[in-house]
Amino acid sequence: MKDLVTGLLAGKVRPLAKAITVVENDRSGKRELLKEIYPRTGNAYLLGITGPPGAGKSTLTDKVISKLRQQGKTVGVIAVDPSSPFSGGAILGDRIRMQQHALDDGVFIRSMATRSHLGGLSKSAVDVMHLMDASGKDVIIIETVGVGQDEVDIVRIAKTTVVVMVPGLGDSVQIAKAGVMEIADVFAVNKADREGADKLFSEIRAMLDMIKDKDKPEIFRTVAVDDVGIDELVQGIFAHGDKVVETGLIQKKIAEKAESELRAYLLDSIMERSTTMTDYDEIVKRVADKQITPMDGVDEIFAGLGMTIKES
Amino acid sequence: MKDLVTGLLAGKVRPLAKAITVVENDRSGKRELLKEIYPRTGNAYLLGITGPPGAGKSTLTDKVISKLRQQGKTVGVIAVDPSSPFSGGAILGDRIRMQQHALDDGVFIRSMATRSHLGGLSKSAVDVMHLMDASGKDVIIIETVGVGQDEVDIVRIAKTTVVVMVPGLGDSVQIAKAGVMEIADVFAVNKADREGADKLFSEIRAMLDMIKDKDKPEIFRTVAVDDVGIDELVQGIFAHGDKVVETGLIQKKIAEKAESELRAYLLDSIMERSTTMTDYDEIVKRVADKQITPMDGVDEIFAGLGMTIKES
Repeated sequence: MKDLVTGLLAGKVRPLAKAITVVENDRSGKRELLKEIYPRTGNAYLLGITGPPGAGKSTLTDKVISKLRQQGKTVGVIAVDPSSPFSGGAILGDRIRMQQHALDDGVFIRSMATRSHLGGLSKSAVDVMHLMDASGKDVIIIETVGVGQDEVDIVRIAKTTVVVMVPGLGDSVQIAKAGVMEIADVFAVNKADREGADKLFSEIRAMLDMIKDKDKPEIFRTVAVDDVGIDELVQGIFAHGDKVVETGLIQKKIAEKAESELRAYLLDSIMERSTTMTDYDEIVKRVADKQITPMDGVDEIFAGLGMTIKES
Repeated sequence: MKDLVTGLLAGKVRPLAKAITVVENDRSGKRELLKEIYPRTGNAYLLGITGPPGAGKSTLTDKVISKLRQQGKTVGVIAVDPSSPFSGGAILGDRIRMQQHALDDGVFIRSMATRSHLGGLSKSAVDVMHLMDASGKDVIIIETVGVGQDEVDIVRIAKTTVVVMVPGLGDSVQIAKAGVMEIADVFAVNKADREGADKLFSEIRAMLDMIKDKDKPEIFRTVAVDDVGIDELVQGIFAHGDKVVETGLIQKKIAEKAESELRAYLLDSIMERSTTMTDYDEIVKRVADKQITPMDGVDEIFAGLGMTIKES
């Protein structure tokens, strides 16, 4: 364990990989390991990249990694992939696309399926993030698919969140529905050589004018496959990061990050306790049979965990 | 309260609206109300409609409602809209689109923003579903945007889940990433008059052939704006429902539904207790300051709630 921690903190690849395995498989020593490295976290630049399927996020992430490497920065990537909640497996697409970095010790990529029993950011993702952070990665990219709860958490964890949009996903009501206006720090209109890119750019701008007074996110045009616009995007990302520090917003971000992490652990832990320390399956069965309401079921679980029942 | 329950169970519109307000605003009597009506739930046909932004789900839902009304069925709609987790407000798009049903007492539509502190299906959504169910709605449509955790829960709640796809969202890896192969009971390729619809249809079919041996979801072509293919889709939905009953799969579905509901209440309740009955904000602050790890924070919360600390 001591060697593992020492190697990890020294930024070595194999101890990091081994530590991630320990954490993901819930092996013994996990808690001690995480506690040991925790004081060394908090230095990485956490960058969220999100957007709908088909927007080209993986390709864009790939190009962003290359730029960061050119600047001498080490990079961790966590691809949170909700694709297979039932099979539990992550699709290989991302890894295939990013395999040009496979031989680069300065890049560490991990795909993770989100767990099905938990919403939002999984505890595993937070753990892996902490390990990468402690191992000295300068930038950690958290890439997520879609427009759901996950993104809400990502934006609370990340210093800068890039929302990748692409022409052809529909009208402006649809953009608003995607819920990205509130979470984007920076926009990338990817596949900007396609028809409709200008229109999308204008729609995003118009929507931002409607809902934000100041500190409007910058919008960049990219064609990730051709490496077009990536330099400007990366500059825009760090410019946002500087602004966050200058305006003091960073304090709020740090508090939100802590709250998100705490919540991820809390929800995961309560599910774990409920399923292992109470008659969870039996309670589910009685709810299914309509013998008790879900609320009654929760009261039973709480009682089983030693909590008092609150009247309401 | 007695009048409210009686009116609701009789299927009257205003008591239903009032009950939803009681539940959503967490007014006193909420728990009693839900307990009172709970035995009368479980009769509605729960239909999930999901898919990426821009797929035309709202228009499709609108047309499906019309067909169901023609068949004499009453309909409840819960539009779970994750669009504005920060503002808390739901976009009006859906309501505007569906307002042709506004004067029809047989249709009750409710848009809800998902709550930001909880992943997955919110307790509110489950509550509203129960109210609509008890009020005698024949079909309850739960419409969600996106491809995240929400959908995993919807599919566990719904008898039949329709995934709406649309040409132009990218290649087959992207379809797989959207995670829809596992959750779809029925596919609708909407905007089927557009270029690329045939290709999308074939890709979905090919993907299904790869991952499923039998019980493959049917794929329908629709052009919702022109009311094309909706009859066939609705038939396909009920055919799936019949199959679920015939094969006995319905028992598994009922158990999954109960578990999802219990979990929604459990996670919501633990957050509520943690934030009101422990020094939650203080604990967050100490995590943010790195005085304690998130795991230590959870231990403190659990101790504050009367639970014993488990060694691990």
